[in-house]
Amino acid sequence: MLSKDKIFLALLIFIPISIAAHFLHWGEIVIFITSALAILPLAAWMGTATEEIAVVVGPSLGGLLNATFGNATELIIGLVALKAGLINVVKASLTGSIIGNLLLVMGLSMLLGGLRYKEQEFQPIVARVNASSMNLAVIAMLLPTMVNYTSEGISQSTMQTLSSAVAIVLIVVYALTLLFSMRTHTYLYDAGVADIDPGELEALAESNLVGEESGGKVNLPLWIGILLACTLMVAVESELLVDSLEVATKSLGLTALFTGVIIVPIVGNAAEHATAVTVAMKNKMDLSVSVAVGSSLQIALFVAPVLVLAGFVLGQPMDLDFNPFELVAVAVAVLITNSISSDGRSNWLEGTLLLAAYVVLGLAFYFHPVIEGIG
Amino acid sequence: MLSKDKIFLALLIFIPISIAAHFLHWGEIVIFITSALAILPLAAWMGTATEEIAVVVGPSLGGLLNATFGNATELIIGLVALKAGLINVVKASLTGSIIGNLLLVMGLSMLLGGLRYKEQEFQPIVARVNASSMNLAVIAMLLPTMVNYTSEGISQSTMQTLSSAVAIVLIVVYALTLLFSMRTHTYLYDAGVADIDPGELEALAESNLVGEESGGKVNLPLWIGILLACTLMVAVESELLVDSLEVATKSLGLTALFTGVIIVPIVGNAAEHATAVTVAMKNKMDLSVSVAVGSSLQIALFVAPVLVLAGFVLGQPMDLDFNPFELVAVAVAVLITNSISSDGRSNWLEGTLLLAAYVVLGLAFYFHPVIEGIG
Amino acid sequence: MLSKDKIFLALLIFIPISIAAHFLHWGEIVIFITSALAILPLAAWMGTATEEIAVVVGPSLGGLLNATFGNATELIIGLVALKAGLINVVKASLTGSIIGNLLLVMGLSMLLGGLRYKEQEFQPIVARVNASSMNLAVIAMLLPTMVNYTSEGISQSTMQTLSSAVAIVLIVVYALTLLFSMRTHTYLYDAGVADIDPGELEALAESNLVGEESGGKVNLPLWIGILLACTLMVAVESELLVDSLEVATKSLGLTALFTGVIIVPIVGNAAEHATAVTVAMKNKMDLSVSVAVGSSLQIALFVAPVLVLAGFVLGQPMDLDFNPFELVAVAVAVLITNSISSDGRSNWLEGTLLLAAYVVLGLAFYFHPVIEGIG
Repeated sequence: MLSKDKIFLALLIFIPISIAAHFLHWGEIVIFITSALAILPLAAWMGTATEEIAVVVGPSLGGLLNATFGNATELIIGLVALKAGLINVVKASLTGSIIGNLLLVMGLSMLLGGLRYKEQEFQPIVARVNASSMNLAVIAMLLPTMVNYTSEGISQSTMQTLSSAVAIVLIVVYALTLLFSMRTHTYLYDAGVADIDPGELEALAESNLVGEESGGKVNLPLWIGILLACTLMVAVESELLVDSLEVATKSLGLTALFTGVIIVPIVGNAAEHATAVTVAMKNKMDLSVSVAVGSSLQIALFVAPVLVLAGFVLGQPMDLDFNPFELVAVAVAVLITNSISSDGRSNWLEGTLLLAAYVVLGLAFYFHPVIEGIG
Repeated sequence: MLSKDKIFLALLIFIPISIAAHFLHWGEIVIFITSALAILPLAAWMGTATEEIAVVVGPSLGGLLNATFGNATELIIGLVALKAGLINVVKASLTGSIIGNLLLVMGLSMLLGGLRYKEQEFQPIVARVNASSMNLAVIAMLLPTMVNYTSEGISQSTMQTLSSAVAIVLIVVYALTLLFSMRTHTYLYDAGVADIDPGELEALAESNLVGEESGGKVNLPLWIGILLACTLMVAVESELLVDSLEVATKSLGLTALFTGVIIVPIVGNAAEHATAVTVAMKNKMDLSVSVAVGSSLQIALFVAPVLVLAGFVLGQPMDLDFNPFELVAVAVAVLITNSISSDGRSNWLEGTLLLAAYVVLGLAFYFHPVIEGIG
Repeated sequence: MLSKDKIFLALLIFIPISIAAHFLHWGEIVIFITSALAILPLAAWMGTATEEIAVVVGPSLGGLLNATFGNATELIIGLVALKAGLINVVKASLTGSIIGNLLLVMGLSMLLGGLRYKEQEFQPIVARVNASSMNLAVIAMLLPTMVNYTSEGISQSTMQTLSSAVAIVLIVVYALTLLFSMRTHTYLYDAGVADIDPGELEALAESNLVGEESGGKVNLPLWIGILLACTLMVAVESELLVDSLEVATKSLGLTALFTGVIIVPIVGNAAEHATAVTVAMKNKMDLSVSVAVGSSLQIALFVAPVLVLAGFVLGQPMDLDFNPFELVAVAVAVLITNSISSDGRSNWLEGTLLLAAYVVLGLAFYFHPVIEGIG
């Protein structure tokens, strides 16, 4: 575990490098890569800081904090890209975050966990509730696109009104999901966590920390400071990332669609990836699946609707009218994940199937022709 | 329960009002609304009369009677609209009945039942058989449309031949489903009903009655008379409803698609709605789910095929070539319902998810541009 | 069982008849029908020979042999049609083999088994692993087509590169599936086979033989000779079948699409059909489902990718860009099969539902307009 922290510490060096690259005009590719690398440790620390503060403020407010800031990195990158008018990159990275969490993160967790343990178990009930919420999210993303696709087209303003209305429904559903898991039906979720030795859980949480912290007392002002500082730095680095994205990816021979769907989400979700895989290898599959599916749900039910509403406020034409291929990708990702997770068991082959689906999707996105407006 | 009957009794006043509105030319909107309100108590009484007669004629013939007349209101409205040439309204109301039963009725049942009981259970085996039949029905509705969509188009007469052939397959499947549930595998269905105290079931059936009836003896001629009278009146009111539909909905700013998918099915299914929600709140989830899913199945496997064959006889170009968006709507409704009902348990969040899906679908239909020929 | 062997022996007469029909110019329809009939016994004997050799060479190599030669008939017909440039017939027969195995074979097995036994059981765990693999296969077939469909089209060479890359992923997944079932997680599969009395299994295997064989000793050179001779004869008959296909089906009023999807797969899979139905009627549903789903998986994860790579080598434009309607057909077949097999139980109604889906698909393919290039 120490090594992960050391890697994150070492990656901090890319913050000054990326800023220098920007001011000294070292080229867009250098800026793009260094700012992406700089975001990784910042995202990890934001996660840690959120969890630490959550512990102090108590379960209810803490749960809410986790639920709101859990995907803060994606949200910040999304807002910066939205402000820059890169609507299609924003949509692509939403698609990619969902796909990446479901297929890449869960697939790696099941594969690496499954290489060590013949069969791993997790709560099928929670998996089912999540599957149904995820189905609703897919439906909500699908319908505005299909309205456009199955008619002779609707105006941009109608599409934005429809998308905003759907976004509000999704945010309400998200709030109710939190109410369900944190208030009325906590016992469903507890069962899974109960298996986990509380000491280990704490050790796990702390393993994400850099610090010298040792006592039971959390230094609240310190962590709030770290959270604010990291948020600020993520915003700065996101600016660099987004500004350099178009030129850099073109020089690398990648379409903006591929970058948005595959590369940006890997940067934004690196912290979740690390956590989910680590706990899977400790046979805590419940937690691993929760992180992966929970993160997807948060993207679909919270980050995406917030970005739609933000687009409305910022005057950007952000809506839920996706490229049909992105919808196909999200739909198949949800389909195969539901099929694999529904029985509450996993093994290395199931992990491999998820990864294979991710590879096939990646190939398809790689060869998908440039789409006007994002390439 | 008394109040429900009183409401239905009070609604009878709309029968003369709607007829007066028609002859005194009070305007299409008044006719539309009053005839819709007049259908509600008539549909409820048709249901009660069917059940009463079913009790007398014995389980086999009675079951068949229930299975045939259970959705008589939808069938009558459909036939009247078909005769008037409003093919697209007929198709839209078939779509809407399936969606409404699965999402609105089952969603409300699970939500209101779930607010009172933490977790409710029902027979997962029956849910699975129903899910598979429903999948077949969706497939049968999907394929003719897709034949048209994935080729350069086929002629109207070929489409009608294909649709009629598919309709016959569906009716055969429907008959076999009845044979399965009433003859060869009754024990699967009994298990669920066994939980229900027979006294209560009877009380429940009687709660739908207006009457002074008290003894164990059913007045067969009376109920046959009521059934015939109600059927006749539903036909009359359906004429008024269908005739005023186009002008009325246009003045209300609604497309005929939205009216067909959302409003007409609520009128046609009000009785099922009331029953399913009532029994869910009494924790009889088995019965509630049966009513909702059974009604959808009846629409898809019996009412829709009968209307296709009726179109053939009436010389109307009725077929199974739906608007692709309607198919998407039915497919997602079946998908999320299967996902939620497959484990044989429900809670308030699952009800909310179904309702949210219904709201999102309603928004999408509301904003779907007018389609030529029905607007 | 004896009668099946006698039928197969009798069918051998069509080998000389079909060859005579070819040289004596008896007409394309005669050649088409006689060569189709001649393939049936050859395919059955290839299967028997493969199993016999598999027994001798031991479980690992034998399993591999079975997995590779299990669908040799389809592979040979596919290669011959590919060499003749009938790309769309090849694709259609792949689609049809998957659909036929899932719906027709499994449907008939469940129906005929279900008429004899009220409820039949099989391993739900194996069904789930297979369902997930099948989902991946559908996704892999779907994506290249969708890339083409959701963009302004991609060049043939890009499509072939993408398809080849996907094909390699599928073959790797297939190899890993074998590793999983034959090495790391054999116990999952054993449980099902354990129910089967080993004596009966052997009797079953032998029932496929014609011969006088009686002792425990397998005559390896004989069976290798039979395998080679049958393979050669299947190749010859496939040539006759493929050469006469276009003219014959046109004279019979069938489109090449219908022939490829419905007729060719029935010829290629007749042996599996016979086996799956026979064992289902002996209440060995585990084996029956394994044969049907296993054969579909082999087509999707092995035969189809091999044909794509063979097309690359032969310079034929074979890729994974299917007719959208074929994809719809495969997707709905997998959907309803998963829905029906997920609970590990079957009854006659579930068999009927699968058959009804097959009939509806058959009707849709029958009426699907001729597609340029294969009609």
